[in-house]
Amino acid sequence: MTELDVILGIDFGGTKVAIGLSDREGTLLAQRRIDTDAEAGAQQVIDRALAAAAELLTGNGHASPSAIGVVSPGIVLPDEILLAPNVPGWQQLRLRDLVRARFGDLPVAVGTDVKAAGLAEARWGALRGVDPAVFLYLGTGLAAAILIGGRVLPGANGAAGEIGYNLRGVSDTDGFASGSAPLEEAVGGRGLGRRVSALTGKPTTAAELFELAKQDPAAKELLTDALDELSVHVANLAIAIDPVRIAVGGGLVRSADVVLPPLRHRLSQAVPFPPALVPAEFDQDGALRGAIALALDA
Amino acid sequence: MTELDVILGIDFGGTKVAIGLSDREGTLLAQRRIDTDAEAGAQQVIDRALAAAAELLTGNGHASPSAIGVVSPGIVLPDEILLAPNVPGWQQLRLRDLVRARFGDLPVAVGTDVKAAGLAEARWGALRGVDPAVFLYLGTGLAAAILIGGRVLPGANGAAGEIGYNLRGVSDTDGFASGSAPLEEAVGGRGLGRRVSALTGKPTTAAELFELAKQDPAAKELLTDALDELSVHVANLAIAIDPVRIAVGGGLVRSADVVLPPLRHRLSQAVPFPPALVPAEFDQDGALRGAIALALDA
Repeated sequence: MTELDVILGIDFGGTKVAIGLSDREGTLLAQRRIDTDAEAGAQQVIDRALAAAAELLTGNGHASPSAIGVVSPGIVLPDEILLAPNVPGWQQLRLRDLVRARFGDLPVAVGTDVKAAGLAEARWGALRGVDPAVFLYLGTGLAAAILIGGRVLPGANGAAGEIGYNLRGVSDTDGFASGSAPLEEAVGGRGLGRRVSALTGKPTTAAELFELAKQDPAAKELLTDALDELSVHVANLAIAIDPVRIAVGGGLVRSADVVLPPLRHRLSQAVPFPPALVPAEFDQDGALRGAIALALDA
Repeated sequence: MTELDVILGIDFGGTKVAIGLSDREGTLLAQRRIDTDAEAGAQQVIDRALAAAAELLTGNGHASPSAIGVVSPGIVLPDEILLAPNVPGWQQLRLRDLVRARFGDLPVAVGTDVKAAGLAEARWGALRGVDPAVFLYLGTGLAAAILIGGRVLPGANGAAGEIGYNLRGVSDTDGFASGSAPLEEAVGGRGLGRRVSALTGKPTTAAELFELAKQDPAAKELLTDALDELSVHVANLAIAIDPVRIAVGGGLVRSADVVLPPLRHRLSQAVPFPPALVPAEFDQDGALRGAIALALDA
Protein backbone atom coordinates (compact mmCIF):
# COMPACT_ATOMS: atom_id res chain seq x y z
CA MET A 1 0.00 0.00 0.00
CA THR A 2 1.27 3.46 -0.90
CA GLU A 3 0.77 6.50 1.25
CA LEU A 4 0.13 8.82 -1.70
CA ASP A 5 -3.12 10.75 -1.71
CA VAL A 6 -5.67 9.33 -4.08
CA ILE A 7 -9.09 10.71 -4.95
CA LEU A 8 -12.00 8.46 -5.89
CA GLY A 9 -14.63 9.61 -8.36
CA ILE A 10 -17.79 7.77 -9.36
CA ASP A 11 -20.12 8.85 -12.17
CA PHE A 12 -23.43 6.99 -12.20
CA GLY A 13 -24.84 7.22 -15.72
CA GLY A 14 -28.03 5.80 -17.18
CA THR A 15 -26.22 2.92 -18.89
CA LYS A 16 -22.65 2.95 -17.47
CA VAL A 17 -20.97 3.74 -14.19
CA ALA A 18 -17.47 5.24 -14.52
CA ILE A 19 -15.11 4.84 -11.58
CA GLY A 20 -11.77 6.58 -11.46
CA LEU A 21 -8.80 7.35 -9.27
CA SER A 22 -6.83 10.55 -9.58
CA ASP A 23 -4.05 12.43 -7.90
CA ARG A 24 -4.55 15.84 -6.29
CA GLU A 25 -3.94 17.56 -9.64
CA GLY A 26 -6.87 15.74 -11.21
CA THR A 27 -4.75 13.42 -13.36
CA LEU A 28 -6.60 10.13 -13.82
CA LEU A 29 -4.47 7.23 -12.58
CA ALA A 30 -6.87 4.36 -13.17
CA GLN A 31 -10.38 3.98 -14.52
CA ARG A 32 -13.05 1.33 -14.80
CA ARG A 33 -16.56 1.08 -16.21
CA ILE A 34 -19.41 -1.20 -15.23
CA ASP A 35 -22.97 -1.50 -16.54
CA THR A 36 -25.69 0.35 -14.68
CA ASP A 37 -28.43 -2.20 -15.42
CA ALA A 38 -30.96 0.46 -14.55
CA GLU A 39 -34.02 -1.83 -14.67
CA ALA A 40 -32.63 -3.88 -11.77
CA GLY A 41 -32.90 -0.81 -9.54
CA ALA A 42 -30.70 1.51 -7.55
CA GLN A 43 -29.40 -0.68 -4.73
CA GLN A 44 -27.63 -3.26 -6.90
CA VAL A 45 -25.77 -0.67 -8.96
CA ILE A 46 -24.61 1.19 -5.87
CA ASP A 47 -23.41 -2.09 -4.30
CA ARG A 48 -21.56 -3.16 -7.44
CA ALA A 49 -20.06 0.28 -8.03
CA LEU A 50 -18.73 0.60 -4.48
CA ALA A 51 -17.31 -2.94 -4.67
CA ALA A 52 -15.66 -2.14 -8.02
CA ALA A 53 -14.26 1.09 -6.55
CA ALA A 54 -12.78 -0.83 -3.61
CA GLU A 55 -11.19 -3.29 -6.03
CA LEU A 56 -9.78 -0.48 -8.16
CA LEU A 57 -8.23 1.07 -5.04
CA THR A 58 -6.60 -2.10 -3.75
CA GLY A 59 -5.59 -3.14 -7.28
CA ASN A 60 -3.70 0.15 -7.52
CA GLY A 61 -2.11 -0.16 -4.10
CA HIS A 62 -4.37 2.14 -2.10
CA ALA A 63 -6.09 1.21 1.13
CA SER A 64 -8.49 4.09 1.05
CA PRO A 65 -9.08 7.35 -0.84
CA SER A 66 -8.53 10.79 0.69
CA ALA A 67 -11.83 12.08 -0.62
CA ILE A 68 -14.68 10.81 -2.74
CA GLY A 69 -16.88 12.54 -5.31
CA VAL A 70 -20.04 10.96 -6.62
CA VAL A 71 -22.19 12.35 -9.41
CA SER A 72 -25.39 11.24 -11.08
CA PRO A 73 -28.20 12.66 -13.17
CA GLY A 74 -30.72 14.70 -11.20
CA ILE A 75 -30.29 17.10 -8.36
CA VAL A 76 -28.03 15.18 -6.04
CA LEU A 77 -28.50 16.03 -2.39
CA PRO A 78 -26.74 14.08 0.36
CA ASP A 79 -29.98 12.31 1.37
CA GLU A 80 -32.10 12.47 -1.74
CA ILE A 81 -31.85 12.76 -5.53
CA LEU A 82 -34.41 14.93 -7.30
CA LEU A 83 -35.43 15.02 -10.98
CA ALA A 84 -33.94 11.57 -11.69
CA PRO A 85 -36.81 9.25 -12.56
CA ASN A 86 -34.90 6.85 -14.84
CA VAL A 87 -33.46 4.35 -12.33
CA PRO A 88 -36.06 2.77 -9.99
CA GLY A 89 -35.24 3.68 -6.40
CA TRP A 90 -32.63 6.26 -7.35
CA GLN A 91 -34.52 9.25 -5.94
CA GLN A 92 -34.60 7.81 -2.41
CA LEU A 93 -30.85 7.15 -2.23
CA ARG A 94 -28.93 8.43 0.75
CA LEU A 95 -25.82 8.52 -1.39
CA ARG A 96 -23.41 10.05 1.08
CA ASP A 97 -24.34 7.58 3.84
CA LEU A 98 -23.95 4.61 1.50
CA VAL A 99 -20.51 5.78 0.39
CA ARG A 100 -19.40 6.38 3.97
CA ALA A 101 -20.75 2.99 5.07
CA ARG A 102 -18.31 1.43 2.61
CA PHE A 103 -15.28 3.72 2.88
CA GLY A 104 -15.56 5.30 6.32
CA ASP A 105 -16.01 8.87 7.46
CA LEU A 106 -14.17 10.59 4.61
CA PRO A 107 -14.94 13.86 2.80
CA VAL A 108 -17.69 12.88 0.35
CA ALA A 109 -19.03 15.33 -2.23
CA VAL A 110 -22.11 14.61 -4.29
CA GLY A 111 -23.36 16.47 -7.34
CA THR A 112 -25.18 16.53 -10.63
CA ASP A 113 -23.28 14.91 -13.52
CA VAL A 114 -23.68 17.74 -16.04
CA LYS A 115 -22.74 20.44 -13.53
CA ALA A 116 -19.71 18.34 -12.54
CA ALA A 117 -18.67 17.93 -16.18
CA GLY A 118 -18.94 21.72 -16.56
CA LEU A 119 -16.74 22.19 -13.51
CA ALA A 120 -14.16 19.81 -14.98
CA GLU A 121 -14.10 21.85 -18.21
CA ALA A 122 -13.69 25.06 -16.20
CA ARG A 123 -10.90 23.66 -14.06
CA TRP A 124 -8.93 21.52 -16.51
CA GLY A 125 -10.58 21.72 -19.93
CA ALA A 126 -12.05 23.90 -22.62
CA LEU A 127 -13.45 26.54 -20.24
CA ARG A 128 -10.31 27.16 -18.22
CA GLY A 129 -9.79 30.83 -17.39
CA VAL A 130 -12.93 32.17 -19.10
CA ASP A 131 -15.69 33.89 -17.15
CA PRO A 132 -18.59 33.58 -17.47
CA ALA A 133 -18.87 30.36 -19.45
CA VAL A 134 -21.46 27.76 -20.33
CA PHE A 135 -21.10 24.01 -20.60
CA LEU A 136 -23.76 22.51 -22.83
CA TYR A 137 -24.42 18.81 -22.51
CA LEU A 138 -25.92 17.14 -25.58
CA GLY A 139 -26.18 13.46 -24.73
CA THR A 140 -29.05 11.14 -23.92
CA GLY A 141 -30.48 14.14 -22.12
CA LEU A 142 -29.97 17.87 -22.48
CA ALA A 143 -28.76 20.28 -19.81
CA ALA A 144 -26.28 23.07 -19.21
CA ALA A 145 -23.94 24.24 -16.49
CA ILE A 146 -23.51 27.99 -16.07
CA LEU A 147 -20.05 28.90 -14.80
CA ILE A 148 -19.60 32.15 -12.91
CA GLY A 149 -16.14 32.91 -11.57
CA GLY A 150 -15.05 29.33 -12.27
CA ARG A 151 -17.86 27.85 -10.17
CA VAL A 152 -21.06 26.23 -11.31
CA LEU A 153 -24.19 28.27 -10.62
CA PRO A 154 -26.28 25.88 -8.53
CA GLY A 155 -29.45 27.94 -8.41
CA ALA A 156 -31.73 28.13 -5.40
CA ASN A 157 -32.58 24.42 -5.60
CA GLY A 158 -29.61 22.99 -7.47
CA ALA A 159 -31.65 23.12 -10.67
CA ALA A 160 -30.02 25.97 -12.62
CA GLY A 161 -29.15 25.09 -16.20
CA GLU A 162 -31.74 22.31 -16.59
CA ILE A 163 -32.70 23.63 -20.02
CA GLY A 164 -34.14 20.28 -21.09
CA TYR A 165 -37.32 21.59 -19.44
CA ASN A 166 -37.38 24.69 -21.67
CA LEU A 167 -40.60 25.49 -23.47
CA ARG A 168 -40.17 25.75 -27.24
CA GLY A 169 -42.98 28.25 -27.60
CA VAL A 170 -46.46 29.22 -26.52
CA SER A 171 -47.93 25.99 -27.85
CA ASP A 172 -45.90 23.92 -25.37
CA THR A 173 -48.63 23.66 -22.74
CA ASP A 174 -47.00 20.61 -21.16
CA GLY A 175 -43.89 21.04 -19.08
CA PHE A 176 -42.20 19.98 -15.87
CA ALA A 177 -45.48 20.05 -13.90
CA SER A 178 -47.01 17.45 -16.20
CA GLY A 179 -43.91 15.26 -16.22
CA SER A 180 -42.46 16.44 -19.48
CA ALA A 181 -39.23 18.11 -20.57
CA PRO A 182 -40.25 19.72 -23.86
CA LEU A 183 -36.88 20.73 -25.29
CA GLU A 184 -35.08 17.56 -24.20
CA GLU A 185 -37.82 15.37 -25.65
CA ALA A 186 -37.51 17.18 -28.97
CA VAL A 187 -33.74 17.48 -29.33
CA GLY A 188 -32.00 15.39 -26.64
CA GLY A 189 -30.39 12.11 -27.72
CA ARG A 190 -33.19 9.96 -26.35
CA GLY A 191 -35.83 12.19 -27.95
CA LEU A 192 -34.02 12.17 -31.28
CA GLY A 193 -33.82 8.36 -31.10
CA ARG A 194 -37.55 8.13 -30.48
CA ARG A 195 -38.30 10.49 -33.34
CA VAL A 196 -36.03 8.76 -35.87
CA SER A 197 -37.38 5.35 -34.77
CA ALA A 198 -40.86 6.56 -35.68
CA LEU A 199 -39.46 7.54 -39.07
CA THR A 200 -37.64 4.26 -39.79
CA GLY A 201 -40.23 2.00 -38.15
CA LYS A 202 -37.54 0.22 -36.10
CA PRO A 203 -35.44 1.03 -33.03
CA THR A 204 -32.89 3.61 -34.18
CA THR A 205 -30.50 5.66 -32.06
CA ALA A 206 -29.54 9.32 -32.26
CA ALA A 207 -26.06 8.22 -33.36
CA GLU A 208 -27.65 6.25 -36.21
CA LEU A 209 -29.71 9.33 -37.12
CA PHE A 210 -26.49 11.24 -37.84
CA GLU A 211 -25.43 8.47 -40.26
CA LEU A 212 -28.87 8.16 -41.84
CA ALA A 213 -29.11 11.91 -42.39
CA LYS A 214 -26.19 11.69 -44.84
CA GLN A 215 -28.41 9.98 -47.44
CA ASP A 216 -32.05 10.01 -46.27
CA PRO A 217 -33.80 13.37 -46.86
CA ALA A 218 -36.45 12.77 -44.17
CA ALA A 219 -33.79 11.91 -41.59
CA LYS A 220 -31.77 14.92 -42.66
CA GLU A 221 -34.79 17.17 -42.22
CA LEU A 222 -35.51 15.77 -38.77
CA LEU A 223 -31.92 16.39 -37.69
CA THR A 224 -31.73 19.85 -39.27
CA ASP A 225 -34.97 20.93 -37.64
CA ALA A 226 -33.90 19.60 -34.24
CA LEU A 227 -30.56 21.41 -34.37
CA ASP A 228 -32.34 24.57 -35.50
CA GLU A 229 -34.72 24.32 -32.54
CA LEU A 230 -31.79 23.72 -30.18
CA SER A 231 -29.87 26.65 -31.67
CA VAL A 232 -32.60 29.11 -30.65
CA HIS A 233 -32.31 28.00 -27.02
CA VAL A 234 -28.52 28.09 -27.03
CA ALA A 235 -28.65 31.62 -28.47
CA ASN A 236 -31.18 32.78 -25.87
CA LEU A 237 -29.11 31.24 -23.06
CA ALA A 238 -26.05 33.06 -24.42
CA ILE A 239 -28.03 36.33 -24.49
CA ALA A 240 -28.96 35.81 -20.81
CA ILE A 241 -25.47 34.94 -19.58
CA ASP A 242 -23.18 36.78 -22.06
CA PRO A 243 -20.52 34.08 -21.77
CA VAL A 244 -17.03 34.27 -23.24
CA ARG A 245 -17.22 30.70 -24.45
CA ILE A 246 -19.61 27.75 -24.66
CA ALA A 247 -18.18 24.22 -24.59
CA VAL A 248 -20.35 21.41 -25.90
CA GLY A 249 -20.03 17.92 -24.44
CA GLY A 250 -22.01 14.69 -24.59
CA GLY A 251 -22.40 12.01 -27.24
CA LEU A 252 -23.92 14.25 -29.92
CA VAL A 253 -20.82 16.43 -30.12
CA ARG A 254 -18.93 13.50 -31.64
CA SER A 255 -20.68 14.78 -34.78
CA ALA A 256 -19.30 18.27 -34.13
CA ASP A 257 -19.10 19.05 -37.85
CA VAL A 258 -22.89 18.64 -38.06
CA VAL A 259 -23.91 19.95 -34.62
CA LEU A 260 -21.78 23.04 -34.11
CA PRO A 261 -22.27 25.04 -37.36
CA PRO A 262 -26.04 25.65 -36.95
CA LEU A 263 -25.50 26.63 -33.31
CA ARG A 264 -22.71 29.03 -34.31
CA HIS A 265 -24.95 30.50 -36.98
CA ARG A 266 -27.67 31.37 -34.47
CA LEU A 267 -25.17 32.78 -32.00
CA SER A 268 -23.81 35.12 -34.65
CA GLN A 269 -27.33 36.11 -35.70
CA ALA A 270 -28.84 36.79 -32.30
CA VAL A 271 -26.29 37.43 -29.55
CA PRO A 272 -24.88 40.97 -29.13
CA PHE A 273 -21.45 39.56 -28.31
CA PRO A 274 -21.45 36.06 -29.81
CA PRO A 275 -19.42 33.67 -27.64
CA ALA A 276 -17.01 31.14 -29.07
CA LEU A 277 -18.55 27.67 -29.36
CA VAL A 278 -16.10 24.80 -28.97
CA PRO A 279 -16.24 21.06 -28.34
CA ALA A 280 -15.63 20.15 -24.69
CA GLU A 281 -12.16 18.83 -23.94
CA PHE A 282 -13.37 15.73 -22.10
CA ASP A 283 -15.43 13.21 -23.97
CA GLN A 284 -16.78 10.26 -21.99
CA ASP A 285 -15.06 11.08 -18.71
CA GLY A 286 -16.09 14.71 -18.17
CA ALA A 287 -18.55 13.93 -15.38
CA LEU A 288 -16.08 11.52 -13.74
CA ARG A 289 -13.43 14.25 -13.74
CA GLY A 290 -16.05 16.57 -12.33
CA ALA A 291 -16.74 14.13 -9.51
CA ILE A 292 -13.03 14.28 -8.73
CA ALA A 293 -13.08 18.09 -8.85
CA LEU A 294 -15.96 18.06 -6.34
CA ALA A 295 -14.03 15.65 -4.11
CA LEU A 296 -10.96 17.90 -4.22
CA ASP A 297 -13.14 20.81 -3.07
CA ALA A 298 -14.86 18.76 -0.32
CA MET B 1 -23.48 74.29 3.39
CA THR B 2 -23.66 71.11 5.47
CA GLU B 3 -20.79 68.70 5.85
CA LEU B 4 -22.99 65.61 5.64
CA ASP B 5 -22.14 63.03 2.99
CA VAL B 6 -24.46 63.16 0.04
CA ILE B 7 -24.57 60.82 -2.95
CA LEU B 8 -25.68 62.00 -6.38
CA GLY B 9 -27.50 59.67 -8.75
CA ILE B 10 -28.54 60.38 -12.33
CA ASP B 11 -30.72 58.11 -14.44
CA PHE B 12 -30.81 59.06 -18.13
CA GLY B 13 -34.00 57.61 -19.61
CA GLY B 14 -35.38 57.83 -23.12
CA THR B 15 -37.91 60.51 -22.18
CA LYS B 16 -36.94 61.69 -18.68
CA VAL B 17 -33.78 62.18 -16.67
CA ALA B 18 -34.13 61.52 -12.94
CA ILE B 19 -31.66 63.20 -10.60
CA GLY B 20 -31.52 62.37 -6.92
CA LEU B 21 -29.56 62.93 -3.75
CA SER B 22 -29.34 60.30 -1.05
CA ASP B 23 -27.59 59.62 2.20
CA ARG B 24 -25.16 56.72 2.65
CA GLU B 25 -28.06 54.39 3.53
CA GLY B 26 -29.68 55.00 0.15
CA THR B 27 -32.53 57.13 1.49
CA LEU B 28 -33.55 59.66 -1.15
CA LEU B 29 -33.29 63.20 0.23
CA ALA B 30 -34.27 65.17 -2.86
CA GLN B 31 -35.26 64.37 -6.40
CA ARG B 32 -35.83 66.14 -9.68
CA ARG B 33 -36.84 65.21 -13.21
CA ILE B 34 -36.12 66.92 -16.50
CA ASP B 35 -37.05 66.02 -20.07
CA THR B 36 -34.51 64.12 -22.14
CA ASP B 37 -35.53 65.67 -25.46
CA ALA B 38 -33.77 62.80 -27.19
CA GLU B 39 -34.06 64.19 -30.72
CA ALA B 40 -31.90 67.18 -29.75
CA GLY B 41 -29.00 64.82 -29.12
CA ALA B 42 -26.78 63.67 -26.30
CA GLN B 43 -24.72 66.75 -25.46
CA GLN B 44 -27.63 69.05 -24.55
CA VAL B 45 -29.22 66.55 -22.18
CA ILE B 46 -25.93 65.86 -20.43
CA ASP B 47 -25.32 69.59 -20.02
CA ARG B 48 -28.83 70.25 -18.68
CA ALA B 49 -28.76 67.22 -16.38
CA LEU B 50 -25.41 68.14 -14.84
CA ALA B 51 -26.59 71.74 -14.38
CA ALA B 52 -29.80 70.52 -12.74
CA ALA B 53 -27.80 68.22 -10.49
CA ALA B 54 -25.58 71.11 -9.40
CA GLU B 55 -28.68 73.18 -8.62
CA LEU B 56 -30.23 70.32 -6.65
CA LEU B 57 -27.04 70.03 -4.61
CA THR B 58 -26.71 73.73 -3.78
CA GLY B 59 -30.48 74.03 -3.24
CA ASN B 60 -30.17 71.34 -0.58
CA GLY B 61 -27.13 72.88 1.04
CA HIS B 62 -24.39 70.70 -0.44
CA ALA B 63 -21.28 72.01 -2.16
CA SER B 64 -20.40 68.72 -3.76
CA PRO B 65 -21.41 65.05 -3.59
CA SER B 66 -19.17 62.32 -2.09
CA ALA B 67 -19.76 60.01 -5.02
CA ILE B 68 -21.77 59.98 -8.22
CA GLY B 69 -23.60 57.18 -10.01
CA VAL B 70 -24.88 57.59 -13.55
CA VAL B 71 -27.00 55.05 -15.41
CA SER B 72 -28.51 54.91 -18.87
CA PRO B 73 -29.85 52.38 -21.32
CA GLY B 74 -27.21 50.37 -23.14
CA ILE B 75 -23.94 48.96 -21.95
CA VAL B 76 -22.41 51.89 -20.15
CA LEU B 77 -18.64 51.89 -20.20
CA PRO B 78 -16.64 54.84 -18.85
CA ASP B 79 -15.72 56.01 -22.36
CA GLU B 80 -18.45 54.56 -24.54
CA ILE B 81 -22.05 53.38 -24.42
CA LEU B 82 -22.95 50.30 -26.44
CA LEU B 83 -26.39 49.03 -27.57
CA ALA B 84 -28.04 52.43 -27.05
CA PRO B 85 -29.10 53.70 -30.46
CA ASN B 86 -32.08 55.83 -29.35
CA VAL B 87 -30.42 59.14 -28.47
CA PRO B 88 -28.23 60.60 -31.27
CA GLY B 89 -24.64 60.85 -30.08
CA TRP B 90 -25.25 58.81 -26.94
CA GLN B 91 -22.98 55.94 -27.92
CA GLN B 92 -19.90 58.16 -28.20
CA LEU B 93 -20.30 59.72 -24.74
CA ARG B 94 -17.35 59.74 -22.40
CA LEU B 95 -19.74 59.85 -19.50
CA ARG B 96 -17.27 59.61 -16.66
CA ASP B 97 -15.09 62.42 -18.03
CA LEU B 98 -18.10 64.71 -18.53
CA VAL B 99 -19.29 64.13 -14.97
CA ARG B 100 -15.80 64.75 -13.56
CA ALA B 101 -15.39 67.89 -15.68
CA ARG B 102 -18.40 69.30 -13.83
CA PHE B 103 -17.96 67.92 -10.31
CA GLY B 104 -14.25 67.26 -10.01
CA ASP B 105 -12.23 64.11 -9.47
CA LEU B 106 -14.79 62.20 -7.40
CA PRO B 107 -15.68 58.50 -7.38
CA VAL B 108 -17.96 58.14 -10.42
CA ALA B 109 -19.71 54.87 -11.22
CA VAL B 110 -21.53 54.28 -14.49
CA GLY B 111 -23.88 51.44 -15.39
CA THR B 112 -26.85 50.12 -17.30
CA ASP B 113 -30.22 51.34 -16.02
CA VAL B 114 -31.96 47.95 -15.81
CA LYS B 115 -29.01 46.29 -14.09
CA ALA B 116 -28.87 49.22 -11.65
CA ALA B 117 -32.61 48.91 -10.93
CA GLY B 118 -32.06 45.20 -10.25
CA LEU B 119 -29.25 46.07 -7.85
CA ALA B 120 -31.52 48.53 -6.04
CA GLU B 121 -34.17 45.80 -5.63
CA ALA B 122 -31.52 43.40 -4.30
CA ARG B 123 -30.10 45.93 -1.86
CA TRP B 124 -33.19 47.76 -0.62
CA GLY B 125 -36.27 46.33 -2.34
CA ALA B 126 -38.18 43.23 -3.34
CA LEU B 127 -35.10 41.04 -3.90
CA ARG B 128 -33.36 41.73 -0.61
CA GLY B 129 -31.74 38.60 0.88
CA VAL B 130 -32.74 36.18 -1.88
CA ASP B 131 -30.14 34.40 -4.02
CA PRO B 132 -30.20 33.94 -6.92
CA ALA B 133 -32.82 36.38 -8.09
CA VAL B 134 -33.99 37.98 -11.31
CA PHE B 135 -35.18 41.53 -11.94
CA LEU B 136 -37.37 41.72 -15.02
CA TYR B 137 -37.87 45.14 -16.60
CA LEU B 138 -41.06 45.56 -18.62
CA GLY B 139 -41.05 49.16 -19.76
CA THR B 140 -40.49 50.85 -23.09
CA GLY B 141 -37.88 48.18 -23.60
CA LEU B 142 -37.41 44.70 -22.19
CA ALA B 143 -34.41 43.42 -20.25
CA ALA B 144 -33.46 41.53 -17.12
CA ALA B 145 -30.82 41.68 -14.42
CA ILE B 146 -29.59 38.38 -13.02
CA LEU B 147 -28.54 38.67 -9.38
CA ILE B 148 -26.00 36.20 -8.02
CA GLY B 149 -24.91 36.64 -4.43
CA GLY B 150 -26.57 40.07 -4.32
CA ARG B 151 -24.57 41.34 -7.29
CA VAL B 152 -25.69 41.81 -10.87
CA LEU B 153 -24.18 39.34 -13.32
CA PRO B 154 -22.49 41.64 -15.84
CA GLY B 155 -21.52 38.98 -18.39
CA ALA B 156 -18.31 39.04 -20.37
CA ASN B 157 -19.28 42.28 -22.15
CA GLY B 158 -21.77 43.83 -19.74
CA ALA B 159 -24.60 42.41 -21.86
CA ALA B 160 -25.99 39.63 -19.64
CA GLY B 161 -29.75 39.74 -19.22
CA GLU B 162 -30.47 41.63 -22.45
CA ILE B 163 -33.36 39.29 -23.23
CA GLY B 164 -35.03 41.83 -25.51
CA TYR B 165 -32.77 40.28 -28.17
CA ASN B 166 -34.18 36.79 -27.56
CA LEU B 167 -35.36 34.83 -30.55
CA ARG B 168 -38.98 33.71 -30.27
CA GLY B 169 -38.44 30.60 -32.35
CA VAL B 170 -36.77 29.14 -35.41
CA SER B 171 -38.65 31.49 -37.72
CA ASP B 172 -36.96 34.54 -36.16
CA THR B 173 -34.19 34.83 -38.71
CA ASP B 174 -33.57 38.47 -37.84
CA GLY B 175 -31.81 39.34 -34.62
CA PHE B 176 -29.15 41.57 -33.11
CA ALA B 177 -26.86 41.22 -36.15
CA SER B 178 -29.50 42.72 -38.42
CA GLY B 179 -30.40 45.49 -35.99
CA SER B 180 -33.44 43.88 -34.45
CA ALA B 181 -34.46 42.80 -30.96
CA PRO B 182 -37.14 40.21 -31.71
CA LEU B 183 -38.66 39.69 -28.27
CA GLU B 184 -38.58 43.37 -27.29
CA GLU B 185 -40.16 44.40 -30.58
CA ALA B 186 -42.99 41.93 -29.97
CA VAL B 187 -43.70 42.43 -26.28
CA GLY B 188 -41.78 45.49 -24.99
CA GLY B 189 -43.78 48.64 -24.34
CA ARG B 190 -42.63 50.39 -27.51
CA GLY B 191 -43.36 47.26 -29.57
CA LEU B 192 -46.80 46.86 -28.01
CA GLY B 193 -47.54 50.51 -28.78
CA ARG B 194 -46.54 50.01 -32.40
CA ARG B 195 -48.69 46.88 -32.66
CA VAL B 196 -51.79 48.40 -31.06
CA SER B 197 -51.38 51.56 -33.18
CA ALA B 198 -51.59 49.36 -36.29
CA LEU B 199 -54.78 47.91 -34.85
CA THR B 200 -56.45 51.23 -33.96
CA GLY B 201 -55.12 53.15 -36.95
CA LYS B 202 -53.85 55.98 -34.72
CA PRO B 203 -50.94 56.50 -32.32
CA THR B 204 -51.72 54.40 -29.26
CA THR B 205 -49.45 53.58 -26.32
CA ALA B 206 -48.91 50.32 -24.47
CA ALA B 207 -50.64 51.90 -21.44
CA GLU B 208 -53.66 52.62 -23.63
CA LEU B 209 -53.58 49.02 -24.88
CA PHE B 210 -54.20 47.81 -21.31
CA GLU B 211 -57.30 50.04 -21.12
CA LEU B 212 -58.50 49.11 -24.60
CA ALA B 213 -58.13 45.39 -23.90
CA LYS B 214 -60.88 45.66 -21.27
CA GLN B 215 -63.53 46.08 -23.99
CA ASP B 216 -61.98 45.50 -27.41
CA PRO B 217 -61.56 41.79 -28.29
CA ALA B 218 -58.80 42.41 -30.86
CA ALA B 219 -56.81 44.50 -28.37
CA LYS B 220 -57.38 41.86 -25.70
CA GLU B 221 -56.09 39.17 -28.03
CA LEU B 222 -53.00 41.21 -28.90
CA LEU B 223 -52.21 41.73 -25.23
CA THR B 224 -52.96 38.13 -24.24
CA ASP B 225 -50.75 36.77 -27.02
CA ALA B 226 -47.92 39.16 -26.14
CA LEU B 227 -47.99 38.20 -22.46
CA ASP B 228 -48.14 34.54 -23.43
CA GLU B 229 -45.06 34.98 -25.63
CA LEU B 230 -43.27 36.83 -22.84
CA SER B 231 -44.23 34.15 -20.32
CA VAL B 232 -42.36 31.47 -22.27
CA HIS B 233 -39.16 33.50 -22.07
CA VAL B 234 -39.57 34.30 -18.40
CA ALA B 235 -40.12 30.60 -17.71
CA ASN B 236 -37.04 29.59 -19.71
CA LEU B 237 -34.93 32.22 -17.96
CA ALA B 238 -36.16 30.88 -14.61
CA ILE B 239 -35.23 27.34 -15.70
CA ALA B 240 -31.71 28.55 -16.53
CA ILE B 241 -31.12 30.49 -13.31
CA ASP B 242 -33.34 28.68 -10.77
CA PRO B 243 -34.00 31.92 -8.86
CA VAL B 244 -35.76 32.19 -5.52
CA ARG B 245 -37.76 35.17 -6.69
CA ILE B 246 -38.39 37.32 -9.75
CA ALA B 247 -39.30 40.99 -9.28
CA VAL B 248 -40.98 42.78 -12.16
CA GLY B 249 -40.43 46.49 -12.67
CA GLY B 250 -41.11 49.03 -15.41
CA GLY B 251 -44.25 50.75 -16.60
CA LEU B 252 -46.13 47.63 -17.65
CA VAL B 253 -46.18 46.25 -14.11
CA ARG B 254 -48.54 49.06 -13.11
CA SER B 255 -51.06 46.64 -14.65
CA ALA B 256 -49.77 43.86 -12.39
CA ASP B 257 -53.21 42.22 -12.18
CA VAL B 258 -53.07 41.66 -15.96
CA VAL B 259 -49.34 41.07 -16.43
CA LEU B 260 -48.35 38.80 -13.56
CA PRO B 261 -50.96 35.98 -13.68
CA PRO B 262 -50.00 34.64 -17.14
CA LEU B 263 -46.32 34.77 -16.18
CA ARG B 264 -47.03 32.92 -12.93
CA HIS B 265 -49.02 30.33 -14.84
CA ARG B 266 -46.06 29.51 -17.13
CA LEU B 267 -43.63 29.42 -14.23
CA SER B 268 -45.81 26.86 -12.44
CA GLN B 269 -46.19 24.84 -15.64
CA ALA B 270 -42.58 24.72 -16.75
CA VAL B 271 -40.07 25.42 -13.99
CA PRO B 272 -39.00 22.55 -11.71
CA PHE B 273 -38.92 24.88 -8.71
CA PRO B 274 -41.19 27.79 -9.66
CA PRO B 275 -39.88 31.06 -8.22
CA ALA B 276 -42.14 33.63 -6.61
CA LEU B 277 -43.06 36.44 -9.00
CA VAL B 278 -43.64 39.83 -7.36
CA PRO B 279 -43.88 43.47 -8.42
CA ALA B 280 -40.66 45.39 -7.87
CA GLU B 281 -40.63 47.64 -4.81
CA PHE B 282 -39.44 50.73 -6.68
CA ASP B 283 -41.61 52.11 -9.42
CA GLN B 284 -40.23 55.08 -11.37
CA ASP B 285 -37.08 55.55 -9.31
CA GLY B 286 -35.58 52.03 -9.36
CA ALA B 287 -32.80 52.89 -11.81
CA LEU B 288 -32.07 56.16 -9.95
CA ARG B 289 -31.73 54.24 -6.69
CA GLY B 290 -29.52 51.79 -8.56
CA ALA B 291 -27.29 54.65 -9.70
CA ILE B 292 -26.93 55.59 -6.03
CA ALA B 293 -26.13 51.96 -5.12
CA LEU B 294 -23.41 51.96 -7.77
CA ALA B 295 -22.03 55.25 -6.42
CA LEU B 296 -21.96 53.84 -2.87
CA ASP B 297 -19.91 50.88 -4.17
CA ALA B 298 -17.56 53.08 -6.23
